[in-house]
Amino acid sequence: MQTVPRPVERLIEELNRLPGIGPKTASRLTFYLLRSPRDQVQALAEAVGELQEKIVTCSECFNIAEASPCAICGDAHRDRSLICVVEEPLDVLAIERTREYHGLYHVLHGAISPMEGVGPEDLRIAELVQRLRHHPVEEVILATNPNLEGESTAMFIFRQLAPLGARVSRLAHGLPMGGDVEYADEVTLTRALEGRTKM
Amino acid sequence: MQTVPRPVERLIEELNRLPGIGPKTASRLTFYLLRSPRDQVQALAEAVGELQEKIVTCSECFNIAEASPCAICGDAHRDRSLICVVEEPLDVLAIERTREYHGLYHVLHGAISPMEGVGPEDLRIAELVQRLRHHPVEEVILATNPNLEGESTAMFIFRQLAPLGARVSRLAHGLPMGGDVEYADEVTLTRALEGRTKM
Repeated sequence: MQTVPRPVERLIEELNRLPGIGPKTASRLTFYLLRSPRDQVQALAEAVGELQEKIVTCSECFNIAEASPCAICGDAHRDRSLICVVEEPLDVLAIERTREYHGLYHVLHGAISPMEGVGPEDLRIAELVQRLRHHPVEEVILATNPNLEGESTAMFIFRQLAPLGARVSRLAHGLPMGGDVEYADEVTLTRALEGRTKM
Repeated sequence: MQTVPRPVERLIEELNRLPGIGPKTASRLTFYLLRSPRDQVQALAEAVGELQEKIVTCSECFNIAEASPCAICGDAHRDRSLICVVEEPLDVLAIERTREYHGLYHVLHGAISPMEGVGPEDLRIAELVQRLRHHPVEEVILATNPNLEGESTAMFIFRQLAPLGARVSRLAHGLPMGGDVEYADEVTLTRALEGRTKM
């Protein structure tokens, strides 16, 4: 017999489709929302509903934005001689939070991963090459993730960009700040040794 | 400067208000939804939006339902001589899943908790007493949680129901099935000893 009202069951199902949210969390959230103030629940519904409607992809850097070109590409104060290539929009946020980078970005929307069937043609790599051809820059910083997919993607892009003559750099690898040599994994420690800098 | 589009920021904020969802999970979910098929995202928005609109509280048992009386209260095959008192609608689901209980329910919507400022008058206790006065039953099973709040609530209700003459019982406490005596906490083990049954 049906003991869960259909609207409750439906929201549990929809939440359960999200990554990291299992059936238990989905029902806890649903019952929490049932008891929440109506305007909070409606605000959530609207925020979800409007998310994709009001978001566009910047035609220059392919970051998500409210308008194209995005706020960064359209900002006259940014250094146009630098492009930082990242996998995801979240990476742009992380780098912006450092307040140390003032160049432009290029968002690939993923990394090359044969395991997940993602090839170079699924990423915005051709668009990057095209962009650099029309607007040459001094340096391209490859800031893909320090893992197998990110490394392969960086290597692939490096080869694509070689003929264009721009300087191509890669984010440094090494010990994370606040970390502990004792607990560092071998790969990180090897990279930290290789990349050691003169004091 | 504003690097997160406002609709993205807004959804992150709204998700972050949910219990157990911190800022990191909220942004991960938001960026996941950004990349999801439009109809899945709209289905989620609708499910959230319609949740409270289409849910009512059953006027008899106070469980959440699509109509009042609810499917259980309106079911002629349920045993009307039994009422099981639970804290939350989710408890009804848990008991229904056993397929062993065929009586009615009464949902308190909480437990007495002086710490959280929840008194007996905030729960559906007066309504339970009223209900039993109009429709006397043979047995009331108190299925509040086996913790301080649940125990106090059960004790409080027990005293309220005493003058009405119905048999009042409490769910058994003891070792959980699949558990291990070695790892049982002392309170559970004490309850298991006290409640030992003849083989």
